[in-house]
Amino acid sequence: YANKIRERPQHFCDRLLISDDWPGYSLDLFTYPQHYYGDLEYVLIPHGVIVDRTECLAKDIMQDIGDNNIVVLCVLKGGYKFCADLVEYIETLSRNSERSISMKVDFVRLKSYHNDQSTQDMQIIGGEDLSKLTGKDIIGTGRTMKALLNNIEKYKPKMIKVASLLVKRTSQPDGYRPDYYGFEIPNVFVVGYALEYNEHFRDLNHICVINDNGKGKYKV
Amino acid sequence: YANKIRERPQHFCDRLLISDDWPGYSLDLFTYPQHYYGDLEYVLIPHGVIVDRTECLAKDIMQDIGDNNIVVLCVLKGGYKFCADLVEYIETLSRNSERSISMKVDFVRLKSYHNDQSTQDMQIIGGEDLSKLTGKDIIGTGRTMKALLNNIEKYKPKMIKVASLLVKRTSQPDGYRPDYYGFEIPNVFVVGYALEYNEHFRDLNHICVINDNGKGKYKV
Amino acid sequence: YANKIRERPQHFCDRLLISDDWPGYSLDLFTYPQHYYGDLEYVLIPHGVIVDRTECLAKDIMQDIGDNNIVVLCVLKGGYKFCADLVEYIETLSRNSERSISMKVDFVRLKSYHNDQSTQDMQIIGGEDLSKLTGKDIIGTGRTMKALLNNIEKYKPKMIKVASLLVKRTSQPDGYRPDYYGFEIPNVFVVGYALEYNEHFRDLNHICVINDNGKGKYKV
Amino acid sequence: YANKIRERPQHFCDRLLISDDWPGYSLDLFTYPQHYYGDLEYVLIPHGVIVDRTECLAKDIMQDIGDNNIVVLCVLKGGYKFCADLVEYIETLSRNSERSISMKVDFVRLKSYHNDQSTQDMQIIGGEDLSKLTGKDIIGTGRTMKALLNNIEKYKPKMIKVASLLVKRTSQPDGYRPDYYGFEIPNVFVVGYALEYNEHFRDLNHICVINDNGKGKYKV
Repeated sequence: YANKIRERPQHFCDRLLISDDWPGYSLDLFTYPQHYYGDLEYVLIPHGVIVDRTECLAKDIMQDIGDNNIVVLCVLKGGYKFCADLVEYIETLSRNSERSISMKVDFVRLKSYHNDQSTQDMQIIGGEDLSKLTGKDIIGTGRTMKALLNNIEKYKPKMIKVASLLVKRTSQPDGYRPDYYGFEIPNVFVVGYALEYNEHFRDLNHICVINDNGKGKYKV
Repeated sequence: YANKIRERPQHFCDRLLISDDWPGYSLDLFTYPQHYYGDLEYVLIPHGVIVDRTECLAKDIMQDIGDNNIVVLCVLKGGYKFCADLVEYIETLSRNSERSISMKVDFVRLKSYHNDQSTQDMQIIGGEDLSKLTGKDIIGTGRTMKALLNNIEKYKPKMIKVASLLVKRTSQPDGYRPDYYGFEIPNVFVVGYALEYNEHFRDLNHICVINDNGKGKYKV
Repeated sequence: YANKIRERPQHFCDRLLISDDWPGYSLDLFTYPQHYYGDLEYVLIPHGVIVDRTECLAKDIMQDIGDNNIVVLCVLKGGYKFCADLVEYIETLSRNSERSISMKVDFVRLKSYHNDQSTQDMQIIGGEDLSKLTGKDIIGTGRTMKALLNNIEKYKPKMIKVASLLVKRTSQPDGYRPDYYGFEIPNVFVVGYALEYNEHFRDLNHICVINDNGKGKYKV
Repeated sequence: YANKIRERPQHFCDRLLISDDWPGYSLDLFTYPQHYYGDLEYVLIPHGVIVDRTECLAKDIMQDIGDNNIVVLCVLKGGYKFCADLVEYIETLSRNSERSISMKVDFVRLKSYHNDQSTQDMQIIGGEDLSKLTGKDIIGTGRTMKALLNNIEKYKPKMIKVASLLVKRTSQPDGYRPDYYGFEIPNVFVVGYALEYNEHFRDLNHICVINDNGKGKYKV
């Protein structure tokens, strides 16, 4: 009597869950800048897997939003690489397939991290073009948050979608999930691929876990 | 009597000069987003040549600044693609060679273009971390200008270098030359590769010259 | 009275014609392996333009042959880079769009060049799987020629398409045109991007014209 | 009493060992050609990790062999992607660093697999230029084997190095280890990234494990 319906996933790309006991990759397996030798514990996500997942997210976004006009709102500074790469993939799909997404790009900046503690206060800097968003679709990228969304909703956009490379499993989950995300990761402090520790490690290609030596060296 | 000394070029990469009578490439030779079909005159610089030149500039920068720490100051919004790609090339060199450049990344925003007229007033938005630049080297990227440099010099950085993808030959040249640049181009209005016309065309991969149809369609 | 009919181009991508008086790019504008410093005259086609054209050809092929199964016959050794890159672009389109091309890959080898003289005798080596081609579509890539086509037609494939990166304007044109090609070039001897002079220059990224010094140095 | 000496690894890049109980990645996490939907069990190695490892191997090879001339002997057909990508990385390093490797490229073909059984007989096809190898260094790539090495050694090359993307843990290990390799994998039958099952799956970007459905569908 059970009425089992196998639901079609909302998006093509599943979510890549990295479990708490995943030991990561040894740093010796990959190349990374020598000025960070000794500062890292392990590679959580090699750069190439970020690339593969971003391609997948771009395909999803294309299928959901194709033939619309969107404003991509890149959240600086941590989101700039993910945003640049995601936009590039969407552009590649746009110019090579039947459907195309017209994209404008804007930038906002949220300030919230000091050392490795996330603080609750945040400032929104820039993004004064948000008033133009009315009637447009938005894909926020990067470590966007509820505060930003509240701010954006004032402009009554037709649709808002959030794409985030990472979602962290925290002890006090706030229930917020982006519409598209690359990886769900353990509650560890990660750097690399534009994510930083006191402005360092943005120039690291892989997403890595910092070690105590690295934390001490770059403390402010 | 003339004492001609053939000077060794300051940088390895020569400057690529695109002459006023260069007809460009037909749009039919390349792929580009279909939402811009009919809006463009010709391709001034195909995307791949931007890539090749950026690799060359990265090599130059690496040779000049290798083993130093720099702060890359990306000038939004037009400079974000060039900056992201240049940083990525420098990172690739950094992790694969004997020398490495440690890079922090910051963003500023200059506002000056309305329609296709460049205005003289400009605002500097963001970049509140500039005070940290003291004693660091800077490479500004994008369509940076003198106003920005004056602003930066207040913080007395050890060295300032400017990298710009394009330098335009104008009727009233102001004598300013960036330290590194990709192309010297005729005084035409170009879009693509993050350069825009009223926020459109940032999602075009090649650098193109807009036509009258495109100007009319996207006028504000 | 003229009955002008603007014909729809057979393919989306136009043909990029490089004229006899095109001076090329200075070698100082790009990076290239230092073991070839002094051996080259100029850059005829920078690597990035090859990339852009290959993307365009892949889109054309996809539109013409999408949803079919093909056997890609790569002509060694000069065609291996073009073939590998073209196949990669078609794969990217295949996995990201509605249509997909299933591809098998095979390799043949034609021998015909000694020093910079093209000889008429040629051997076909390898490719013993050609008997399997019956009923399949073929895209030959590289510097394929009529001899190869005659050989392939024995197996009565459903369709044969030839893709070549370069077509050279010779004094005695044989009337043969590939179905897809990247560039029509002057009758100059070119090296790079897997094209060689006595097995040298395959590891050069750009397509360049060799100079007398280079010819002397690598003569056999 | 044991005199444990932690040996410095012969190469910079460690070996990436994929254990027998590694469940792989779900296929839904990545994009892949739709003509293979339903034919695969899981993703053993996503394409991006192949890319990251290849960059690392190229750096190792560059450090060991830099400033020499080598002949790269690509083993067709399964090795052509790895070979093309590895050569491209070495070229990138060559033209951007102080040291450079001059590379010639040749191709051989070994025939040994039918269905998913590896047979012991093999033929060497092509590679008639091997006589030129005398006094040169060789890096064989792909699924090279002892038979090939015996053949090559007749020409008394100065040095032979073997690079292989994969090394399989078999029940009867033959003790052979390549000088450079990307991954040590369980004894499973893998396809993708130019590795095939009866000529299918070469156009799959990731390295995957085939399922029974796929085996049945493409049996010959």
